[in-house]
Amino acid sequence: MNRISPLGTVYGVGLGPGDPELMSVKADRLVRGARHVAFFRKAGRPGRARSIVEGMIPEDAVEFAMEYPVTTEIPFSDPRYNNMLSAFYADCTAHLRALAEAGESPVVLCEGDPFFYGSFMHLYTRLRAEVPVHVVPAITGMSAAWTATGSPVTWGDDVMSVLMATLPQDELVHRMEAADALVIMKIGRNLPRVRAALEQAGKLDRAWLVEYASMDGQTVLPLSEADERSSPYFSIIIVHGEGRRP
Amino acid sequence: MNRISPLGTVYGVGLGPGDPELMSVKADRLVRGARHVAFFRKAGRPGRARSIVEGMIPEDAVEFAMEYPVTTEIPFSDPRYNNMLSAFYADCTAHLRALAEAGESPVVLCEGDPFFYGSFMHLYTRLRAEVPVHVVPAITGMSAAWTATGSPVTWGDDVMSVLMATLPQDELVHRMEAADALVIMKIGRNLPRVRAALEQAGKLDRAWLVEYASMDGQTVLPLSEADERSSPYFSIIIVHGEGRRP
Repeated sequence: MNRISPLGTVYGVGLGPGDPELMSVKADRLVRGARHVAFFRKAGRPGRARSIVEGMIPEDAVEFAMEYPVTTEIPFSDPRYNNMLSAFYADCTAHLRALAEAGESPVVLCEGDPFFYGSFMHLYTRLRAEVPVHVVPAITGMSAAWTATGSPVTWGDDVMSVLMATLPQDELVHRMEAADALVIMKIGRNLPRVRAALEQAGKLDRAWLVEYASMDGQTVLPLSEADERSSPYFSIIIVHGEGRRP
Repeated sequence: MNRISPLGTVYGVGLGPGDPELMSVKADRLVRGARHVAFFRKAGRPGRARSIVEGMIPEDAVEFAMEYPVTTEIPFSDPRYNNMLSAFYADCTAHLRALAEAGESPVVLCEGDPFFYGSFMHLYTRLRAEVPVHVVPAITGMSAAWTATGSPVTWGDDVMSVLMATLPQDELVHRMEAADALVIMKIGRNLPRVRAALEQAGKLDRAWLVEYASMDGQTVLPLSEADERSSPYFSIIIVHGEGRRP
């Protein structure tokens, strides 16, 4: 990428929804050839992104686990939450920049597609003025989710909206009413609220809950049958569009 | 996939946005191992999907070009348009079904992601009750487009809406005003109308036009500078969200 400068390149590599066969040929090549591999994880967990590439990273590659600071005791709305995350991202950035300045090209493993609600963007915006950064797009979790439902998500001129389950319930209802096809992400503990919002919007009977799309344990069920369920954070709800079809 | 029944499987294989390295490892494997390959194209054209896999299909594979009937003289709104397309899809379906019934597993090449505004869904809905069909998701054109802009498309709780440029201008304006991040597809001759709608919605200065994302000739420019341009049908317009960021 950069033959004149001695700088290496930081690669933000999208790994897709979870099935290693759904990684791109490019991501597969970069991961298998990496000398330095970085990834986010929660303390004490293996890390979702790292798990996807299990067995693919060269044995002598150096791994750098970027562990999120424990924030469960500080609410999102507290400015200390943002400050803590900001300091964490600055630390990660410093490490990756130092590698690139030493001529190395670290591969940052990213679940899903890096520029679509990904964490890598927080490193990207801090790095891009300083060292070369190359982003590899990937299959999104939502693509794997609607494929798992066995029905196309959009037809003809359907409008599709992507909503985070963390939005206020009133806003969810309003957005759900407006769109033809819907993708709702970051479900987890927000499931009952999303369910209520879909009911209010008159779309509960068309909603599907998809857990672990493309992975072991993939589950697809009508949301109306998922009443008392506790669902993973990365579950996705799909409401299919009903547009023009010949 | 199907060891008891003598039926083959019809594979709807998403090829992604255009760069062959952005195909999934699974798509790459299926295409390189195919004995029968089918793809849509316009009469007299090589076909976009077929072009992506140039050099990857086995030499002795049988190719089946599904050529869209010429419909430029019949408007969308005319029922004959739908009838003509419907008959065309029925013909394609009959061919693929016959192959599967003979124990073959044809690979249908699909641009982008098959279940996201794709043409394959019209075959899928006709085939799935009759023979096994397996759909491989892929990187969408929009992922390649927002990656090409060099900025993340969504942050925090941003709402992202996907709009077709073929919608009425009033509806476009309304939808553009409501969403945080926007993807507008099927641009082509609709470019001036989309541009006007974005201006009315107050978002023209944040809009980017991406042509040939991930392919030779990839072009990214501010839409406000694309005034008199004639843009390909598959161009994509991106408006980035501006949500919470630590």
